[in-house]
Amino acid sequence: MKEAQLFGEVVEIASSKDHNFNYIPENYMVPSDLDYLHLTTNNTIFGTQFKEIPDTQVPLVADMSSDIFSRTWDYSKFDLFYAGAQKNMGPAGTTLVLVKEELLGKVSRSIPSMLDYAVQIKGGSMFNTPPVFAVYTSLLTMRWIEEQGGLEALGTKNSIKATHLYGEIDRNSKFTGFVATKDRSEMNATFNLTDPELAAPFDALCEKVGISGLKGHRSVGGYRASIYNALPMKSVETLVDCMQILENNH
Amino acid sequence: MKEAQLFGEVVEIASSKDHNFNYIPENYMVPSDLDYLHLTTNNTIFGTQFKEIPDTQVPLVADMSSDIFSRTWDYSKFDLFYAGAQKNMGPAGTTLVLVKEELLGKVSRSIPSMLDYAVQIKGGSMFNTPPVFAVYTSLLTMRWIEEQGGLEALGTKNSIKATHLYGEIDRNSKFTGFVATKDRSEMNATFNLTDPELAAPFDALCEKVGISGLKGHRSVGGYRASIYNALPMKSVETLVDCMQILENNH
Repeated sequence: MKEAQLFGEVVEIASSKDHNFNYIPENYMVPSDLDYLHLTTNNTIFGTQFKEIPDTQVPLVADMSSDIFSRTWDYSKFDLFYAGAQKNMGPAGTTLVLVKEELLGKVSRSIPSMLDYAVQIKGGSMFNTPPVFAVYTSLLTMRWIEEQGGLEALGTKNSIKATHLYGEIDRNSKFTGFVATKDRSEMNATFNLTDPELAAPFDALCEKVGISGLKGHRSVGGYRASIYNALPMKSVETLVDCMQILENNH
Repeated sequence: MKEAQLFGEVVEIASSKDHNFNYIPENYMVPSDLDYLHLTTNNTIFGTQFKEIPDTQVPLVADMSSDIFSRTWDYSKFDLFYAGAQKNMGPAGTTLVLVKEELLGKVSRSIPSMLDYAVQIKGGSMFNTPPVFAVYTSLLTMRWIEEQGGLEALGTKNSIKATHLYGEIDRNSKFTGFVATKDRSEMNATFNLTDPELAAPFDALCEKVGISGLKGHRSVGGYRASIYNALPMKSVETLVDCMQILENNH
């Protein structure tokens, strides 16, 4: 929204700011005269995720950077979506964009050629020298996804991982989930200790078994377990073990 | 110039279009009311290169993509320069920018944050997720350059490579150089056959010893030998051998 405001009129359709963004808003009105509606399917910071993509009368544009290739979607609902490679696709340094052709050519103001989708399409995504390594390694990930059984199989695996972790968060008396249950992300699980004094022993348990990067974003606090495609079930089990040991010891 | 015209007034100060860009213009006037003068230090397509960076009263901006790190420069002459990594620095996917601080903050119109140098500097070049692989492998190239003896030693090596190749182009009756002698690039040597009928045997000679990518750009024709930092003297000698065999055989 901050970036879009530099170049056009921005209307906030819905927000969950009233509860520090711990849920996905519902029952909002989308004015029919909008050029497009933008949403982010998965919020890595707060750990929320759209489980159903809303029906809209206006073109729907989505940032899918953090849950692309994590499950199947009803892609017919999107008019344009984009995703930075660095979560489920490949190394940082390239971005996937899919856009319906009828959306193109509607910008009358001058934009740099490299930011013009029509120019990129015309150049076969090689308008300028492409980031070959990031593109090639993304291809390798695509092949890996096929070997895993495709997006349907990956979606099942991701659901099992998330269910196992959230199940423990709900069961364990020492932890509490941050996000409204129905909106919990299957990519980033955010949770807190019920007793902040247990941070030191829990962090020590995690460090001992090699869990890193579990600290929550500064705007949320607590913990955030990123359980992207590349993270195996075994790693989730290791985290759950630490949570259970903490409960047993205290 | 085409891109700059989208956002501002562009004045062409000098051009060598009259001879298909085969020389670097001289004796041009730079109006003192320009916001900046832009030049490209090395032209990969036509094989020209600025050997001396001109003195200017206005800020000097340079695209150094294809000869950065190939030699030493009087960097004090530049106010801003940039270089895509993919020639002498690292894999495609990152760009080096150096800018004098006093040049910043002079743009009043809205620009995307990711294109705002001040934003990038404030974020320590990590305003968004950086292309880690391209940055890291560029670091490895910097270390390799140091191992080679630094830019002065590399510049000497590159001069020796270029001198050897251009020497053969001038000596060999079957070849002719494309660029004015004083403006010849030490990164991209462009040349033609004096007899186009010899293309087939020369191409066969090159293919036999594993030389590839020698075909000139379609706007120049003939041949273009790219002799960037990574190309060893031995490869230049192999090409010169092919040129001599062609002459001896015909």
